[in-house]
Amino acid sequence: MPTVHEANDFIIAPDPAAPRLTRVVEGVDQTGATSALSVVEERPLTIYLNGQEIVTAMTIGDYPEYLALGFLKNQGMLLADDTVTGVEYDEELETVVVRTARKTSYEEKLKKKTRTSGCAVGTVFGDMMEGLEGVTLPAVELRTSWLYALSARINRTPSLYLEAGAIHGTVLCRQDRPLVYMEDVGRHNAVDKIAGWMVQTGEGATDKILYTTGRLTSEMVIKTAMMGIPVLASRSGFTAWGVEIARQVGLTLIGRMRGQRFVCLSGAERLVWDADLSSVPEEERKHRRKSAAE
Amino acid sequence: MPTVHEANDFIIAPDPAAPRLTRVVEGVDQTGATSALSVVEERPLTIYLNGQEIVTAMTIGDYPEYLALGFLKNQGMLLADDTVTGVEYDEELETVVVRTARKTSYEEKLKKKTRTSGCAVGTVFGDMMEGLEGVTLPAVELRTSWLYALSARINRTPSLYLEAGAIHGTVLCRQDRPLVYMEDVGRHNAVDKIAGWMVQTGEGATDKILYTTGRLTSEMVIKTAMMGIPVLASRSGFTAWGVEIARQVGLTLIGRMRGQRFVCLSGAERLVWDADLSSVPEEERKHRRKSAAE
Repeated sequence: MPTVHEANDFIIAPDPAAPRLTRVVEGVDQTGATSALSVVEERPLTIYLNGQEIVTAMTIGDYPEYLALGFLKNQGMLLADDTVTGVEYDEELETVVVRTARKTSYEEKLKKKTRTSGCAVGTVFGDMMEGLEGVTLPAVELRTSWLYALSARINRTPSLYLEAGAIHGTVLCRQDRPLVYMEDVGRHNAVDKIAGWMVQTGEGATDKILYTTGRLTSEMVIKTAMMGIPVLASRSGFTAWGVEIARQVGLTLIGRMRGQRFVCLSGAERLVWDADLSSVPEEERKHRRKSAAE
Repeated sequence: MPTVHEANDFIIAPDPAAPRLTRVVEGVDQTGATSALSVVEERPLTIYLNGQEIVTAMTIGDYPEYLALGFLKNQGMLLADDTVTGVEYDEELETVVVRTARKTSYEEKLKKKTRTSGCAVGTVFGDMMEGLEGVTLPAVELRTSWLYALSARINRTPSLYLEAGAIHGTVLCRQDRPLVYMEDVGRHNAVDKIAGWMVQTGEGATDKILYTTGRLTSEMVIKTAMMGIPVLASRSGFTAWGVEIARQVGLTLIGRMRGQRFVCLSGAERLVWDADLSSVPEEERKHRRKSAAE
């Protein structure tokens, strides 16, 4: 699959050829013949905040520092005004230690767990809904032409998506340009890596769109809102609570985006209907995210 | 989609028409026209073991008692020799209390969390790998004809799978017969509901096959092995660690099952090659799990 170099390329795009991310494994196929398959790696990464062990995440292992920063940020353990004094990744020990100027202790928060649903359920410490209090999302415009452009660009980007269902991706976008495309076996890792990149670079959220694979669950909506991003879009469907929360926080929620079609179940007031639908291709019959050579 | 009544029907099959599981939500489509959509419900369910709060699971809410029993069993908090003295579901409080004859306390275990990957990541308390020590899986045979029969039957069963990516399903099978088909927004919930059903009914695991949607991650392999089920199969792909663990515990791992094809990356010694491949249909072009009327 040739890489299409756009005038505005991705800042971070998947690197399907990165050797560390996959491994060839041998087995047999349906005829009993030997079959060699490229499968995605999955490694444990233990995240520490100032000496306190927080969680062990299973990840493909491409951006451990971003994953740690983003996880802590999205869990509300790393605050907006925190000064990060260090991020130390030890490849051998499979650990990342994030250090802040502020002394931290999250014993109580770590006790209350919510196992969430959705494709790539994460561990959400503390009260899920607490973090949403006081969240306001900006009244920015969302042009429908951007949605179609993003879909098209993202869908033709070579990814680690080697086999159906092996990987989830989430892409941080601005207007019609995909910027940071992260993948992982767990979707919440992909989102956290984006959040970590934003912490590291200081990149703002109010002018962004988050595009994701997989369904728009309550946890995805909460994460997106807490990251300050006003628009969340996916090819997939919704859950009722995801829609409810989106409406509560004023997030624009776009799902079932395929070909010319989409459904907006929240925040439609941001939409600017500028797309010329006749120029948007219908969905290909066997449409899938394009994969790298297997 | 008409229901096909087989001589050997499911013991439990999805009930896509159950009103409590979905809700109609209104929004707009790509033309700005009003669009009414049926979306899946997602509710919190807090699970207690003998008065101790363990976790809150986000679930579609169809089998709360099985979910609680199975979750606790799969986390190693409910032991094989435990006597369950009560399972109390309170629909209003959205809680389930599981009571055992044995006094329990899991403070320490609850502190160590692993956020796992995969589609429907669960919360895995304690050391993931610890539970696998001493697990032995039986040397049963697995006829390839069973795999094709199961695929065919499961794929034509009406399910809650209203929109692509909205729901995950896992099916407990015996030989060529699907028995218990559970779905949920989180795949690990679906697996736990099956485990809970097995606790409740006393149904054995050694003669079973677990068929699942989504990828064969380390967590799915561990859960299956700890449930004592020797075979795990999916349409989707593998992760390297999932394969490694399967080989360690001697589990038969079958992935990428589509049409006539599949790949076995572990436990191929159980396979009995009795299928007549010429009688197995090729995969339909736009094959998807058949959904109920939208």
